[in-house]
Amino acid sequence: MSETLSLGVDIGGTKAHGLVLDATDRVLADRIVPTRLTADGVRRTVVEVAAALAADLGASPAGFTSVGLGIPGLVDHNRGVVETAVNLGIARSELAGLLAGDFTAGVRVENDLKAAALGAGLVLGQTVRDLVYVNIGTGLAAAAVSGGRLVRGVRNAAGEIGHLAIDPAGEPCACGQRGCLETVLGGLYLAPRLAAHGLELERLDSDPRPVAIAERERLVATLATVLTTVAIAYDSAVITLGGGVVRAARWLRPAVCDELRRRAADSPFLTGLAVADRLAELPEGSPVAAIGAALVGRDPAAVPSKEH
Amino acid sequence: MSETLSLGVDIGGTKAHGLVLDATDRVLADRIVPTRLTADGVRRTVVEVAAALAADLGASPAGFTSVGLGIPGLVDHNRGVVETAVNLGIARSELAGLLAGDFTAGVRVENDLKAAALGAGLVLGQTVRDLVYVNIGTGLAAAAVSGGRLVRGVRNAAGEIGHLAIDPAGEPCACGQRGCLETVLGGLYLAPRLAAHGLELERLDSDPRPVAIAERERLVATLATVLTTVAIAYDSAVITLGGGVVRAARWLRPAVCDELRRRAADSPFLTGLAVADRLAELPEGSPVAAIGAALVGRDPAAVPSKEH
Repeated sequence: MSETLSLGVDIGGTKAHGLVLDATDRVLADRIVPTRLTADGVRRTVVEVAAALAADLGASPAGFTSVGLGIPGLVDHNRGVVETAVNLGIARSELAGLLAGDFTAGVRVENDLKAAALGAGLVLGQTVRDLVYVNIGTGLAAAAVSGGRLVRGVRNAAGEIGHLAIDPAGEPCACGQRGCLETVLGGLYLAPRLAAHGLELERLDSDPRPVAIAERERLVATLATVLTTVAIAYDSAVITLGGGVVRAARWLRPAVCDELRRRAADSPFLTGLAVADRLAELPEGSPVAAIGAALVGRDPAAVPSKEH
Repeated sequence: MSETLSLGVDIGGTKAHGLVLDATDRVLADRIVPTRLTADGVRRTVVEVAAALAADLGASPAGFTSVGLGIPGLVDHNRGVVETAVNLGIARSELAGLLAGDFTAGVRVENDLKAAALGAGLVLGQTVRDLVYVNIGTGLAAAAVSGGRLVRGVRNAAGEIGHLAIDPAGEPCACGQRGCLETVLGGLYLAPRLAAHGLELERLDSDPRPVAIAERERLVATLATVLTTVAIAYDSAVITLGGGVVRAARWLRPAVCDELRRRAADSPFLTGLAVADRLAELPEGSPVAAIGAALVGRDPAAVPSKEH
């Protein structure tokens, strides 16, 4: 078979999203299956979703021309090794090697957030070569693509900005610091804070109570700081948001743009930085992590492939 | 002539440092001349230092196999254009084009700090592919090399971390914000603060006055925050310091390492990050910016050349 069939699987804590791209990056097939835990469980999950996708296409898993996985944790993409994927019950696994016998093509592995950044670049347009994907879910972290390549760092840990401690008087963070950005925006801290006051993230803008206004202002200010920080660090053309927080995008996005413009009004530096103008919205439900996983499978170094 | 003669010139506000590297990155000749201002002055400065270096080597300027310049300001390395090099009296100049007639080899231009990061990587060892060079002089900024490539960003402005505003109650910054990292560590703010109290940066550690202790603690804490921020953003294997602040390295370096270790004692995250262990000292007087300029001349994209 000479057709390009790039398999990508985004492995989440409860479900795995697999899809297949053709040579023009069109999604040919798309499947979601429950994730099994432990390294061998993940292996079986990938095999299962691959078999389902192959069947959808009337092909066999041996027909996939490349295989890429996105997975939480510290990932050494060169060696295909995953560490500390706590939610999957994996302390350390040579995942690429574990799956080598299941596919004809080699298996490549990347951190799920870094894969999502590559996928977001594809979804937002092939010309996006400088992009940051900021994920605000249970935690808070960023993944940067610079000049078409992922900024990985020596431990593949670049972008853990959730643990920038900005408030010495802030809440204690599970990381051992105090006042980390994540303690304001991360769901691990935000959800119980909202629940304690009967607040709803999606409707925080229409809640007139002082506790709602205070929480809203804190979220908006901290998100503005997050976006400014990544714009300064990476000078990316595009910043895009993912994770549970996008449920609140309806009110949060305009509010944070107002806050960014308010800050810029006093600062020629921030005016030049134009952070609000860099914010780009992904189409709702874009499977950027699975698309990115497929891109990782094609080439572990980066997009676009014509660079290599 | 088949010999490699890579000319690099670091153009500072008062002097320009030129040198020539051979194919093994050995410095064959080294010259410092005063910098003339304006774009045409910079052109004449480069021509002058090139002629002097060529004479030292018994060669002609036509013999340089590549020419690279490091210069302050926003530099578009693809087009060889410099903007807002205020200290040199340049608002905008197509500098590479301006010098094209003076050399046989093409002229490449890079921001001086980004060039210094490339040079620091060479001086610290060819294997350093993930490095941050933090310059603390009049201002404060960082340049990152990630996977052997400069993190430039879409406006070539990545790493302007001096303008991360960390203290809402801090000093006003010339950028229009308040409490920027630069207002604590940048010489523009630090020098008058020290002068007002008769303090000396080099001897701040042995000054028993409360004002000295307070200033010292503030510098140490802020530098620890700077180093932690770049370690988190780029996960670079090596962080190295340059600029006027290295005059105080004797006491500042151990003090900041103590501070980083003290913070890590309470935080598994910071213990894993091990920021203090990433700090690397350049040999005193290493001309990293001029060496980096020579590397830029060879290849605008990055080091090492075997990647291309």
